[in-house]
Amino acid sequence: MNRGVFVAFEGIDASGKSTVAKIIAERFDATFTIEPGGTPLGVELRKWLLDADTPMKPESEALLMLADRSHHVFELIEPTLAAGKHIVADRYYASTLAYQGYGRGLNLAELRAATDLAIGPTLPDLTILIDLSVEAANERRQRDTKDRFESADENFHERVRQGYLEMAATASEKWVVIDGAGTVDEVVARVQQELLLLPWNRD
Amino acid sequence: MNRGVFVAFEGIDASGKSTVAKIIAERFDATFTIEPGGTPLGVELRKWLLDADTPMKPESEALLMLADRSHHVFELIEPTLAAGKHIVADRYYASTLAYQGYGRGLNLAELRAATDLAIGPTLPDLTILIDLSVEAANERRQRDTKDRFESADENFHERVRQGYLEMAATASEKWVVIDGAGTVDEVVARVQQELLLLPWNRD
Repeated sequence: MNRGVFVAFEGIDASGKSTVAKIIAERFDATFTIEPGGTPLGVELRKWLLDADTPMKPESEALLMLADRSHHVFELIEPTLAAGKHIVADRYYASTLAYQGYGRGLNLAELRAATDLAIGPTLPDLTILIDLSVEAANERRQRDTKDRFESADENFHERVRQGYLEMAATASEKWVVIDGAGTVDEVVARVQQELLLLPWNRD
Repeated sequence: MNRGVFVAFEGIDASGKSTVAKIIAERFDATFTIEPGGTPLGVELRKWLLDADTPMKPESEALLMLADRSHHVFELIEPTLAAGKHIVADRYYASTLAYQGYGRGLNLAELRAATDLAIGPTLPDLTILIDLSVEAANERRQRDTKDRFESADENFHERVRQGYLEMAATASEKWVVIDGAGTVDEVVARVQQELLLLPWNRD
């Protein structure tokens, strides 16, 4: 049996990536999964991570994210891919580097080493960066339910965006940058065009 | 105000280190703390970490431990030391290197980088390794309440012990190796002798 295809969606908050990722997962008959939160442990960790009332330093935040990711790879992503099913992930390793590394300023070399520890050889076949300006994202954002990340300042989100763009330009595995402006249908159409190149049906 | 003294106890399971650490904490009027578990988040993580029914790969285990440690440093260890109070910790950074690195065979360089991310500059003034042979520890161990670590095989515990001894011999900060054989009083006396050299009263 051939291994499934693994696509990860990345982008700043309110970039629209989650909506697009869910639609894409459905169209390509892939298992949709989200980080943090894809396993029972992940659900628990997600509560702590997004709780704006629990002060936590960025290092702890990053390590919890990575623990969740590592467990997620082991419990869900690898077994699914090995069984020949496809995976669409809403956030993967690049989120930690973008948010805690570029955004919060943690040591990128230490963070990359910890990321390698977390995911091992399990890299996406394609990472889709839904790119949107921070200004446009702010207009889309619902302002009344901010979690820890959504309540950070605008410069933070700008650093995250630039970090994503830098990774897309320099990563050793495949990334594409998709313009996140416009309607959901328009963005989905842009993404779909890139995805048609992947080996979805290899039987 | 002078900074408090920070002493970490390390050793294999059933080496007696927890018993000794608690007595020492009392004698030197230090705050006793345990890892994992020193904070509310830590208590939650400890449940997951010690639950033998939740299969978890060593990488996830290590990252959860490190997330707990990082949070513990931020919430408890640093504020306590900064307030001039002493800390006695039952396990600290070396446990992760010993158990998940030497014991479970994770990449030590990645693990050290992740550890540096977790603890930053907060190193113990002294790490006390209570050293005991695996055979002697097995004799002491209660066999009916094994958690994930206690149910690992004997070679695992031997690797952990050797890892500890290697760190004690090579660490750039101060370690002492204490013979864990004999009665609690005997071991406490050995530890106390080493501790008298530390600046407990600096006012």
